Amino acid sequence: MTVMAYGAYAADTPLESMQIMRRAPDPHDVAIAIVYCGICHSDLHTVRGEWEGTLFPCVPGHEIVGRVTAVGSNVTTFEVGDLVGVGCMVDSCQSCPSCAEGLEQYCEAGMVPTYNGPSAYAPCHTLGGYAQAITVNENFVLKIRHGEEHLAAVAPLLCAGITTWSPLRHWNVGPGMKVGIVGIGGLGHMGVKLAHALGAEVVAFTTSADKCDAALALGADQVVVSRNANEMAAQADSFDFILNTVAASHDLDAYTALLKRDGTMTLVGVPEHAHPTPAVFNLVSRRRSIAGSMIGGIAETQEMLDFCADQGITADIELIRADEIEAAFERMRKSDVKYRFVLDAASLA
Amino acid sequence: MTVMAYGAYAADTPLESMQIMRRAPDPHDVAIAIVYCGICHSDLHTVRGEWEGTLFPCVPGHEIVGRVTAVGSNVTTFEVGDLVGVGCMVDSCQSCPSCAEGLEQYCEAGMVPTYNGPSAYAPCHTLGGYAQAITVNENFVLKIRHGEEHLAAVAPLLCAGITTWSPLRHWNVGPGMKVGIVGIGGLGHMGVKLAHALGAEVVAFTTSADKCDAALALGADQVVVSRNANEMAAQADSFDFILNTVAASHDLDAYTALLKRDGTMTLVGVPEHAHPTPAVFNLVSRRRSIAGSMIGGIAETQEMLDFCADQGITADIELIRADEIEAAFERMRKSDVKYRFVLDAASLA
Repeated sequence: MTVMAYGAYAADTPLESMQIMRRAPDPHDVAIAIVYCGICHSDLHTVRGEWEGTLFPCVPGHEIVGRVTAVGSNVTTFEVGDLVGVGCMVDSCQSCPSCAEGLEQYCEAGMVPTYNGPSAYAPCHTLGGYAQAITVNENFVLKIRHGEEHLAAVAPLLCAGITTWSPLRHWNVGPGMKVGIVGIGGLGHMGVKLAHALGAEVVAFTTSADKCDAALALGADQVVVSRNANEMAAQADSFDFILNTVAASHDLDAYTALLKRDGTMTLVGVPEHAHPTPAVFNLVSRRRSIAGSMIGGIAETQEMLDFCADQGITADIELIRADEIEAAFERMRKSDVKYRFVLDAASLA
Repeated sequence: MTVMAYGAYAADTPLESMQIMRRAPDPHDVAIAIVYCGICHSDLHTVRGEWEGTLFPCVPGHEIVGRVTAVGSNVTTFEVGDLVGVGCMVDSCQSCPSCAEGLEQYCEAGMVPTYNGPSAYAPCHTLGGYAQAITVNENFVLKIRHGEEHLAAVAPLLCAGITTWSPLRHWNVGPGMKVGIVGIGGLGHMGVKLAHALGAEVVAFTTSADKCDAALALGADQVVVSRNANEMAAQADSFDFILNTVAASHDLDAYTALLKRDGTMTLVGVPEHAHPTPAVFNLVSRRRSIAGSMIGGIAETQEMLDFCADQGITADIELIRADEIEAAFERMRKSDVKYRFVLDAASLA
């Protein structure tokens, strides 16, 4: 099946309209008509060749929502017409210890990313969600229980949502805990919403004083401007958990010093230029930890989507057409988006 | 009470014999005739003024074992003649959450170190165990159940032992776990013994191929020479926990890459020159953590001493006289000790 998509033929050429092939569903596949696709910073890095190893043509997009158009002969849990989502992965070995535990993102054989991953189908690498359709193994398709009117704002849950949900859950964030969310962008704004909905006391950290009201509106109990040393000092030794969503190189010590004894700061962004080396004393003196976390497993993605449907949580988005992607990328570089661009797949036609 | 001690009047003068005062026991104090005192690298750093804030005269020593000579009127758990130990702390607030949990080392008001800490008694700072006697609040005195013939080799348990025991226990090291111990010195050799006795599979990491046999003799199941890239690569993704005892600046990524998903590497040494910044990718890609840990609480120190008495575990030591301390310091700088010098307090007379 030939479908319209939007992608790039090289790192230094703009994204453009292109035709790509999607496979007919295998017995375990689900064919999906894409309705919306969130635009993640990873899309930009990959399609511009800013990370090593981009395979061209490149069609980014891993925050996919749409409607089932066909299912393989063995598929029993999805039906034509279902609202579904696809996140950052479309396959994994399904047999290693991580897969067996439902943590396919850590698949020991390597999970297959939704774009720029290995594929048996032309062009021999996966092509993502800036497209009219996609065909995905049923094990990597999520059910969406939000009302259809919220569908565009659900798309970012598939990456920004699960990337923040997974560490919040893994480190048992809930009532009675004080939780910091560093960086109020695509990931951070979801972190604030989710940590708040999980019952924690939430403090948002931002470099921009003008983001304070917006962070409070997202559900933060308090906002700290991280450039204000007095505001930071007042938070010392008080956090059970800090979710740090900032990928740009920055001073981690400013945040480890805010953790209580036995507190953890979890990083979900990999900086292009390394962070300054963290002070070991900050860790040793109060048995603190610095950890990392990467997206989330399929089961916990479904858990997050169901939780968000129950709680009425979606992302805050700005809907764009395909011919606005280049402009959106430029605005993302300046963090000029509240908080996620979402591509309307109807504009690909 | 005036007793003989060994210490320094300034950072640039050698240690020498000196007289110091010890208080008569308050109602909650235990007076101890010191028999042996282990010699820790911290002693050297402090007395040489290599860390900021050394108060002179400085009498180091926080791996103290001896015999009770008098007890305060309210002391009920110690009797004259008991074999006892004193470690890195001699007081804390006893009321903050950390103290209440038996983690006095993290006392939120600041614990009082055995030397170079604040004191109400002359010279207004605490003086350590390179001395004939010490008077300590009963809450910071440990019972020693090893036979008296092992007393010298018990001394290093009070710092090197508990500093490794506490993280091994906190991160639940036991049967079925693969545990790495990085650095086979004063701390590391205890880490190997304790992790082995706790039932873990133990891999010792050393830079020196000539330490391999010794590490196996300590209880390691396997020894890896960390300078051998092939040996290191063979251990990738295999450790549940790594206890890193190396305080010198080194490449942490070489070890985080050896952790399984959800594995933790805990640092117990604070480097004088910072470690190269650790790769965030190593953490994110497998949800690994880098943590820190500092000595241990009083209750867990007693637990460790009792465990070691039951298991017949002591440190491997070289007993020295007071007039050999300077030479011992020089050998410690070259890591030329297997694995801990212990001062015979009889030589102070």
